[in-house]
Amino acid sequence: MMIQGEAIGGPDDLREGEIAVELPARFDASLYYIGRIQTPWKRREDCPKNPRETQAECTIVLDPRWVEGLQGLETVTHVVVLYWMDRARRDLVLQSPHHYSERRGTFALRSPVRPNPIAVSVARLLRIEGNRLTVVGLDCVDNTPLLDLKPYFASTDSVPDASVGWHAGTKR
Amino acid sequence: MMIQGEAIGGPDDLREGEIAVELPARFDASLYYIGRIQTPWKRREDCPKNPRETQAECTIVLDPRWVEGLQGLETVTHVVVLYWMDRARRDLVLQSPHHYSERRGTFALRSPVRPNPIAVSVARLLRIEGNRLTVVGLDCVDNTPLLDLKPYFASTDSVPDASVGWHAGTKR
Repeated sequence: MMIQGEAIGGPDDLREGEIAVELPARFDASLYYIGRIQTPWKRREDCPKNPRETQAECTIVLDPRWVEGLQGLETVTHVVVLYWMDRARRDLVLQSPHHYSERRGTFALRSPVRPNPIAVSVARLLRIEGNRLTVVGLDCVDNTPLLDLKPYFASTDSVPDASVGWHAGTKR
Repeated sequence: MMIQGEAIGGPDDLREGEIAVELPARFDASLYYIGRIQTPWKRREDCPKNPRETQAECTIVLDPRWVEGLQGLETVTHVVVLYWMDRARRDLVLQSPHHYSERRGTFALRSPVRPNPIAVSVARLLRIEGNRLTVVGLDCVDNTPLLDLKPYFASTDSVPDASVGWHAGTKR
């Protein structure tokens, strides 16, 4: 089931030590794109490495179909933004992101390369005008498909003392 | 496009004031279930109202296909768990969850009812044994489909002073 050193299921070659698995024969559920995220970054290599590196304002444009779903969201300070990283291959279990020296498991990384390339970002909400939300704290490429918006609850979503052991001594 | 007071696209009747929209004609992307979440709660009405209400241990069982993807995850204290709320209708834009008095927009709520019923929960990781993760802090029904696991980074995921205005005066 493993294929080592051979690219399948995606556009890029594997880096040394990366391991791809055979993807399941069929999908189990399906998604709607509910809008698009407008950002200043046209190519993936231009994007900030993480959302706290930028103060750039981004615009989330919600499909007008869903606009009534925003009622009440104007009262939150932060939004959980789910989006679809549609350019990423989905079959790697071990990978070596270019800014880290060691190979690690897909689920130990926030890399876009994963079986379901759903990103979760916490963005600060500046304003909502009609179907457009202006936020700070996203790092995705321009025109990224939007999947969901949720209110960020500090009571359940914030764990200030959480740690990622492997990252502690790592320089990005 | 709006249908008021009439149930479409889901198993339940609408509550007063709830608004459903017509779903898009086609899907845009697809998901793999990568495992299942074992919890003590067999029915949705038995589940805790939010993940901080329970100290119950839950078991995330990853499909063996993906098990190498866990390498490195044992060093984290908290995991972002994405799962699929497969029993939820997807067409409501305004809804009245039974434990709140007011109707609100779907994107202002953490309700399972949303166009893409993806839940995001932060769970405390107790241990990993093979393809099984023992965690605390999930509130989903037993056998819920798993979509993704990510390391929780306090630097980007934790916003202790975030607030949800509409919720501030609300008793759950």
